Amino acid sequence: MKGNVLVGQSGGPTAVINSSLAGVFKTAMERGFNKVYGMRYGIQGFMDEQYVDLSEYIKNELDLELLKRTPSAFLGTCRYKLPEIHEDKAVYERIFELLDKLDIEVFIYIGGNDSMDTIRKLFDYSLLTGAKQKFVGCPKTIDNDLAITDHTPGFGSAAKYIATSTKEIICDAMGFSYKKKNVNIVEIMGRNAGWLTGAAGLCRGEDCEGPDLIYLPELPFSVENFVQEVKGLLEKKDVVVAVVSEGIKTEEGKYVCECASANTTTDAFGHIQMSGTASYLATVIKNELGCKTRAVELSTLQRAAAHMASRVDVDEAFNVGGATVKAADEGSSGVMVVIDRVSDDPYQSATGVYDVHRIANDEKMVPRKWINEAGNYVTEEFLDYVRPLIQGHYQPMMVEGLPRHLSIHMKNYDWSAPRGK
Amino acid sequence: MKGNVLVGQSGGPTAVINSSLAGVFKTAMERGFNKVYGMRYGIQGFMDEQYVDLSEYIKNELDLELLKRTPSAFLGTCRYKLPEIHEDKAVYERIFELLDKLDIEVFIYIGGNDSMDTIRKLFDYSLLTGAKQKFVGCPKTIDNDLAITDHTPGFGSAAKYIATSTKEIICDAMGFSYKKKNVNIVEIMGRNAGWLTGAAGLCRGEDCEGPDLIYLPELPFSVENFVQEVKGLLEKKDVVVAVVSEGIKTEEGKYVCECASANTTTDAFGHIQMSGTASYLATVIKNELGCKTRAVELSTLQRAAAHMASRVDVDEAFNVGGATVKAADEGSSGVMVVIDRVSDDPYQSATGVYDVHRIANDEKMVPRKWINEAGNYVTEEFLDYVRPLIQGHYQPMMVEGLPRHLSIHMKNYDWSAPRGK
Repeated sequence: MKGNVLVGQSGGPTAVINSSLAGVFKTAMERGFNKVYGMRYGIQGFMDEQYVDLSEYIKNELDLELLKRTPSAFLGTCRYKLPEIHEDKAVYERIFELLDKLDIEVFIYIGGNDSMDTIRKLFDYSLLTGAKQKFVGCPKTIDNDLAITDHTPGFGSAAKYIATSTKEIICDAMGFSYKKKNVNIVEIMGRNAGWLTGAAGLCRGEDCEGPDLIYLPELPFSVENFVQEVKGLLEKKDVVVAVVSEGIKTEEGKYVCECASANTTTDAFGHIQMSGTASYLATVIKNELGCKTRAVELSTLQRAAAHMASRVDVDEAFNVGGATVKAADEGSSGVMVVIDRVSDDPYQSATGVYDVHRIANDEKMVPRKWINEAGNYVTEEFLDYVRPLIQGHYQPMMVEGLPRHLSIHMKNYDWSAPRGK
Repeated sequence: MKGNVLVGQSGGPTAVINSSLAGVFKTAMERGFNKVYGMRYGIQGFMDEQYVDLSEYIKNELDLELLKRTPSAFLGTCRYKLPEIHEDKAVYERIFELLDKLDIEVFIYIGGNDSMDTIRKLFDYSLLTGAKQKFVGCPKTIDNDLAITDHTPGFGSAAKYIATSTKEIICDAMGFSYKKKNVNIVEIMGRNAGWLTGAAGLCRGEDCEGPDLIYLPELPFSVENFVQEVKGLLEKKDVVVAVVSEGIKTEEGKYVCECASANTTTDAFGHIQMSGTASYLATVIKNELGCKTRAVELSTLQRAAAHMASRVDVDEAFNVGGATVKAADEGSSGVMVVIDRVSDDPYQSATGVYDVHRIANDEKMVPRKWINEAGNYVTEEFLDYVRPLIQGHYQPMMVEGLPRHLSIHMKNYDWSAPRGK
C-alpha cells in the first residue's frame, strides 16, 4: 500500500491555487495514496505540526468543485525561506522527522520562486540522508515571473480580472466626459515584471478603446514625460486612461510611489502617510494639468477574484496539481512541473517536468520587443501570448446571490442563527 | 401615429442604468412609438443638440441583451441642474423648441434626486405653457438614497459586487495570518447613506466570517474608538476586516478622510497629497498597533462591475424603464416610476407611479434601528432587506474571454487590424 501525500501552499495566493490543491488531492486518491495531508500555512505551520487530513474537507465531487472555485490559499500560506542546509541542520531534521511520523511518501509545494527553493533544499537534504520521500514543486503566481514554464497558473485569471475591470473602468470614465476632461490611472500588481500590467491591454477591441497608455516596470519611468504624454492625449480626446505597474521606477531607480512620500509629513497623529503609485500620479496630473483625475488600485482582488477566473487557468492549475503527484508516483523528485505551450493557434498546452536546480531564482521579465518603441504600450505579440490564457469562464457556484467557497473554517451551520449583529 | 420618445441618463452611472434604457426602448417600440432618441450626456448634451436615434445602435434582440449587460451610461451622462423657471426662461424655451422639432411626445430621464428635479421643472414648465409632452422619471442610483421607492435600480448589483469582493478580500486576508496579525480596511462608496457599506455584511455566512466591523456614515465615527475596537479584536483573532463608508465623519462633523490631509504636505512637486478614508485609517492602525494593514478602495468598480450584476436588479431596471413609457403612454406626466416591495418572503416587487413633486430632495438614510447598538454593524433586518436584491446572476456575454458591451463608439470592425500598439 502506498503512503501519504503532503501538500502545502506558499507565497501570495491566487484565484486558482486551490484548483492545484484539488488536482493534487484527486490524482493522489485515484493513484491509491492513503491520505493527503495539507500543511496549514505552508512549511512554517507544518514545522509547528499544523496540518489537516484533506479528506475531512473534500468529501465528494461537489466539495472538489467548490475548492477549485475558492480563492486564496485554502490551507493558508506563508512567506518562509528555509535556511541553507549547512546553516541549520536542526530545521531539516525536524521536518524529516515529521515526514516520517506521518508516513509521507510525496511532498508537494505549490508556490513561486521561493517555494521552489524549498523543494530544492528538501530534495538536496533527502539526497544527503537517503530519505525516501519525493519532492515536487507546483508552480503558481499571478505575476507570471517564473522561468522555464510558459506561464504560471494564477496569471491567466488575474489577467482576465484586470482586463475586465479595466474595461469597466474605461466604460465608466467614458460616460462622464461631456465638456470636461478626465484622467484615470489604474495601478496593477507586479513589482518587477509587467505581465499583469500589460494584460490590461487585452480589453482593447471593437467595443472598447482600451487604455491609452501602459507602463511596465521593465522600463524606466519619467514622471515628466508621462505628464507630457497625457497632455498630448488630452488635446485629442476627453478621457485618458493610463495603466501603471505598482513597481515603475524612475531613471535613478527610485520607485515612483517613493516620490510620493519624499516629502510627506505627518497627519494629526504624527504619522507618515504613504500613497500608492496611481494616487501619486493622479495628484501630479491634477496639479500640472488641472483636470479631474481618479486613481484606482485593484489591490488584492487581482489575486483573489475567483468570480472572474479563466477556465483555461483553472483547468491548467488543476492539471498541474495532478501532474505533480503523477511525477512523484512515477519516481521523480527534485522537480517542478511546468506548462509547455504546444501550439499557439489553436492554443494547446501540456505539462512537463523540470529539474528544480535549473530553475534559477531569477524573475522572467516581459521582453523589450514585446513593449512598443515609445515604451508606453505592449505589442500585439504580447497580447497574442496572453489572450489564450484568459479564455473561458468558470462559473461560480452561487448560494444566496454570492459565490460559495470551501472554507477550512466552516462550521456546522445553524439555519436559524441571525447573520446580522 | 404616435410621436417620438426622448430618453436621457443623468448622474453617476450604475451597472444596470442601461438595462433601464433597454426597457424604455423596447416598450416604446412595442407600443408603437415612432422613434426613440437618446440624449448624449443628458440634458446638458441635449441642449447642444447632441442626440442619437437609438435604433441605429439597437438593431436586434442580441443588441438589446448586450445593452442590458453594458455598464456605465451608454448615452453618456451629466451632472447638470436646470435653473428655476423664473430664473432663466430661455433655457426652457430652448429645450421645448428642440422637443417640438424632434416631435417628442414622451421625455424620460433616468437618474437620481437631481434628475427627478429636472423632470419636475420640465413638467411644471409644460403646465405653464400647455406643452403636450409627458415627463416621466426613471429612478437609478447605486446609493439607494431615493425616497418613496423601496430601493433603486443599481443598488442591488453594486451590493452584490461589494459583498462578493469583500468575501474575496476576507478570504485572501485569512490565508496569510500565520503568526502575524493583519488588519484590512475596505472603503465603500456612499457619502451620506450607508446602504452600500452595510451590504458588505451580506457575505457573512457558513463559509465566511464576514467583516468584523461595519461603519456607516449615519453615525458619528471616532478614530480613537475604532483603534480600541480593532485592538480588542486582535486579542482574539489574527485577521480583522473593517468596512467603512467613504463618508464617515467625526463627532465634530469632519470627514475622516479630511483628517488625513489635516497636516499633509507636499510631495517633490510641491503638491498636496490627499488620502482616502481607508488608507488614512490603515495608517493610523499601523502606527498605533504596529500590525500589517491594507486599505482597499473598490472605487468606480462598485458602479461599473456589470460582470457581477444581480439578475433581480437587471430585470427590475428593465421593467422600471418599460414602466416609464407605459405610464406616459397612458397619460401620466410629472411622475417617477417607483419599485414597491409586494412581499418579502418570497420576494416580489412591482412598479408604481409617484408624483414627482412629492419626491423631496432629501436622502433616504439607513434607519438607526437597522444599525446595531454599538454602531459598528448592521442588523439582521438590514440584511433581510438587501438580500433579495442581489439574487440571481446575469451572465455576461463573453467574447474572447472578456465581457462584451454595446458601445456607442463602436466602429466597423477590422478583423486584421493589430490590437497592440
